[in-house]
Amino acid sequence: MTSPQVLRIESAANATLKSLKTLARESAAYREQGQIWLDGDHLIRAALARGLVPNQVLISEDAMHQSADWRELALRAPRVLVVPTKLFESVSGLPSSTQIGATLAWAPGRALLPDVATVVLDRVQDAGNVGTLLRSAAALGVRQVVALKGCAALGSPKVLRAAMGAHFGLHLVEGASEAELAALQVPLLATSSHADAELHAMDLPHPCAWVFGHEGQGVSASLLARCQTTVSIPQPGGEESLNVAAAAAICLYESLRRQLKA
Amino acid sequence: MTSPQVLRIESAANATLKSLKTLARESAAYREQGQIWLDGDHLIRAALARGLVPNQVLISEDAMHQSADWRELALRAPRVLVVPTKLFESVSGLPSSTQIGATLAWAPGRALLPDVATVVLDRVQDAGNVGTLLRSAAALGVRQVVALKGCAALGSPKVLRAAMGAHFGLHLVEGASEAELAALQVPLLATSSHADAELHAMDLPHPCAWVFGHEGQGVSASLLARCQTTVSIPQPGGEESLNVAAAAAICLYESLRRQLKA
Repeated sequence: MTSPQVLRIESAANATLKSLKTLARESAAYREQGQIWLDGDHLIRAALARGLVPNQVLISEDAMHQSADWRELALRAPRVLVVPTKLFESVSGLPSSTQIGATLAWAPGRALLPDVATVVLDRVQDAGNVGTLLRSAAALGVRQVVALKGCAALGSPKVLRAAMGAHFGLHLVEGASEAELAALQVPLLATSSHADAELHAMDLPHPCAWVFGHEGQGVSASLLARCQTTVSIPQPGGEESLNVAAAAAICLYESLRRQLKA
Repeated sequence: MTSPQVLRIESAANATLKSLKTLARESAAYREQGQIWLDGDHLIRAALARGLVPNQVLISEDAMHQSADWRELALRAPRVLVVPTKLFESVSGLPSSTQIGATLAWAPGRALLPDVATVVLDRVQDAGNVGTLLRSAAALGVRQVVALKGCAALGSPKVLRAAMGAHFGLHLVEGASEAELAALQVPLLATSSHADAELHAMDLPHPCAWVFGHEGQGVSASLLARCQTTVSIPQPGGEESLNVAAAAAICLYESLRRQLKA
């Protein structure tokens, strides 16, 4: 194994730093760069645990010198950039800066996997909701998440932070059209307030694809027409609806519970 | 019924506007002012639907003149402040401003209700998580939410936005100590990765109090010791954990499902 290359950078004008700053702050820069920004040690460890090694690590000099754990983590990448702490903060753009980050070669998949437990996202706008949804999907045994055109960018730093490493355990597809969903070859189920059946009382097909929609408007009419069944979650409190990520957690749990029972 | 007083304000230096700005931007200002800031027509309508009438409405002149719906909504308060659109935006502090907001007299309760379905929050930090939790609790039939010392402020504008009106359907208590929870007179259940039992396979008491903890650290050891049972949510995906609001949605749904079945 070659030892990692360790470089010290002092200048904010450095071209690599400028490109990292773009990656860490702009939600769709990963599409241009073919790599994502892993902010903080948790995401870096989650990638390594799945055998994915970052291209390079950016670490503050304080962290490099004062934390043996983080130094060891940094040195698992082939290239380590050590920067003054202030410069690190100017890259990450976060108020409470993490002091360590990394880039990982990554692009969403293009082909849909047939016949596996899937989540389909229809114009889910909020990056925190999308990340939380990915995290629940990975935890609750979903294999694939398909984001249709108009969703928050799956590889954005905000989605990555909220997903807490779920990206590395899921097959992720981005920018698919509604028509392409036929390739899933599983029944589509959508939550809707005007639903055919109640979640707790209906039969659930397995595998299936759960469809979750826009925070305000829900699933589009054209996509609802492609669904085998629409489902409501019982809400005796009479509130209008659940947050989309909360509704998703409930549906995915119920699918899993039926599997465990069977 | 007296007609509402309609005032036009042009100056950002106006004392009422300054106080609204504080209320709309600072997470704990409602404790000083004894009122909360309802940002947008959805929250105002949710309060009215529960019979709660705002003290005053702030509305942009564009909204007042161009939207019959919003004008009618504004005139349900005894006092309506009409301001230039730019001035409205300077109050709300939101990037995509809502053009209508209101103040409502509100303070959290002090006494804990015994013997009802309850959620206890232990140092849940993120206002979005707390708001989503309140929204799920209200929808899924919980009667009371008790936030222990150290949680995000229940009446903060961010929690109110994420809760989407759940505040008006719940008994909310803030700043309680662990010892005071004895007054609930129901079993406490907490989620934990080192748990006694699995959610889908265990008996669930009803009513009970579900305890949800800090995003990173979970429920404190001292509070876990007060719980009758610790519970894990099955996670075959092998991820570390669910987002706290996702975990809460699952537990509250499972409690409700058992009630519907019984």
